[in-house]
Amino acid sequence: MVISNGATCVITLLSYVLADDGDVFLISSPFYTVLDHDVNVLTKNSLVRCPLLGQEKGEFSLHVDSYKHGYEKAQLDGLRVRGIIIVNPGNPVGDIYDERTLMPILEFAAEKQLHVIVDEIYALSTFTTLHEPFQSILSYKHLPDPKRTHFVWAFSKDFSMSGVRVGVLYSSIEVCMIASKVNFSFLPSGAVQGLMMSLLSDKEWTNRYVRTNKERLTEKFYSVKKQLELMSDGRIKVYEAQAGLFIWADFGLYLNEKSFDEELKLFNMIFDAGLYITCGKILGCNEPGWFRLIFSVKDSWIEEGLIRLKTALNKYEFNT
Amino acid sequence: MVISNGATCVITLLSYVLADDGDVFLISSPFYTVLDHDVNVLTKNSLVRCPLLGQEKGEFSLHVDSYKHGYEKAQLDGLRVRGIIIVNPGNPVGDIYDERTLMPILEFAAEKQLHVIVDEIYALSTFTTLHEPFQSILSYKHLPDPKRTHFVWAFSKDFSMSGVRVGVLYSSIEVCMIASKVNFSFLPSGAVQGLMMSLLSDKEWTNRYVRTNKERLTEKFYSVKKQLELMSDGRIKVYEAQAGLFIWADFGLYLNEKSFDEELKLFNMIFDAGLYITCGKILGCNEPGWFRLIFSVKDSWIEEGLIRLKTALNKYEFNT
Repeated sequence: MVISNGATCVITLLSYVLADDGDVFLISSPFYTVLDHDVNVLTKNSLVRCPLLGQEKGEFSLHVDSYKHGYEKAQLDGLRVRGIIIVNPGNPVGDIYDERTLMPILEFAAEKQLHVIVDEIYALSTFTTLHEPFQSILSYKHLPDPKRTHFVWAFSKDFSMSGVRVGVLYSSIEVCMIASKVNFSFLPSGAVQGLMMSLLSDKEWTNRYVRTNKERLTEKFYSVKKQLELMSDGRIKVYEAQAGLFIWADFGLYLNEKSFDEELKLFNMIFDAGLYITCGKILGCNEPGWFRLIFSVKDSWIEEGLIRLKTALNKYEFNT
Repeated sequence: MVISNGATCVITLLSYVLADDGDVFLISSPFYTVLDHDVNVLTKNSLVRCPLLGQEKGEFSLHVDSYKHGYEKAQLDGLRVRGIIIVNPGNPVGDIYDERTLMPILEFAAEKQLHVIVDEIYALSTFTTLHEPFQSILSYKHLPDPKRTHFVWAFSKDFSMSGVRVGVLYSSIEVCMIASKVNFSFLPSGAVQGLMMSLLSDKEWTNRYVRTNKERLTEKFYSVKKQLELMSDGRIKVYEAQAGLFIWADFGLYLNEKSFDEELKLFNMIFDAGLYITCGKILGCNEPGWFRLIFSVKDSWIEEGLIRLKTALNKYEFNT
């Protein structure tokens, strides 16, 4: 295990340690595009986007075929694929991928000798409506290629500690040994490590916190979903998430024309109304009209945010 | 200005940002050899040692000629010199370099278009016996090449906060802009940044702390120096430091033979007696027999350390 300066830093380290300059990693899209920076900052590595399937129907299905296609495309472009990055639960969609879903991807990776980086930064932020509990990659009885499977986690999301910057890499001894040499310069402050240690040592508090957090996230997700649907007379279609801090919603019915230009126009109007929500284009979504809203904030902020959103939507409709 | 994950991380960033793979930086020796790691960890860069002058006479003088020689040597070896690293006050010697001493080096660097990284991590740990106050590079009225002059500082030494990991880079806007992009992954925890901010905001406390720290360091330095000299009947020659947390001392009169083999033998005996002090060879000293002792610890530790040292010295003498 390696403790580093946040999940960002762990991804940066892994890109540096596992790949050579110019190599690529496959990632399903839409995705948290800051990862483009993370894999690239110390290297010339980059990400190849593998679109989730069914986006034209409002679906976002993870399937090995999409990685296979990305792999072939990268090879045709003369790029060497070194690995796959899986964020589970996903961002922005908020889906959870179980062992059955991930196994074909892990097997494909093993066959091609690709590294698999599994980023479970939202692992404890799942909703209480799940039929089955979230399965961490760490709980799998069998991994097709354990030495090339790397687990990433950090405190920022699950413990609402954005900015605390303590990330974890769990991997083979070999990778941890090499990563540690580089990580010498990127160790988190001893003071912060001590704080996190004492926090985790209080198991009763931690369990209670995680449980309460899950309950509140679930309650808030459905409450904001409902408010958005009501406010828009059902024209905003909220994706049924299973985890995370986001509402992933289709504003397509508002768009004058289904294009990224119109999406950007709407995005700018929302921004001008004083609300920043990320549009799908920025997150590598294939279909125009999707937006990612953070719902895990104060009630009063949600209230104000919805007012501003309504203003922007009206203005957009009126102007076009 | 860039706030990063400790001075180590700032040096790592600078080596990455200012130089290309395989380039070298000049540094006076003996020196804090962890810098070898810092400049090399993300790159294939390395340090070229430029020995302080007069080591055979127990002197350690900083002079531009030593850098000129190192520069020529590097060029003959086919290496591209990208910069000079100056640690002021110095480690392990504890000397302070004033503007008059540094200016010829800064001018030489400007002439050769070399970057100069000035690491002032002991700037506030100077002794009260100084005739003139320490001059930070930041106080110079004129710099020969300000765009290529970079200032480094951190809380670890001057605020006795080893492990807090907050380092500072003060440089041109251009360098800070580029360093910031990389530094995105290496930002210190917001919690720690907040703590340091509130600490520095209390100027009265900070001034009092720095003053008291200087007084105590000075008092302790001379007290431990005296104890070492007494204990050894003057055979241990303590270098007259002006700053820092170290005693730099010549144990040469104890050595059976003036060689690094004998120095290592003595080092091992001291270690076996339960005391870790760094020997000169590790720090790139040219002359055998020098050791670096940390004196800025509890009285009871010093007392116990001196007993262990005495045991080791007796054993060394008896065995040889």
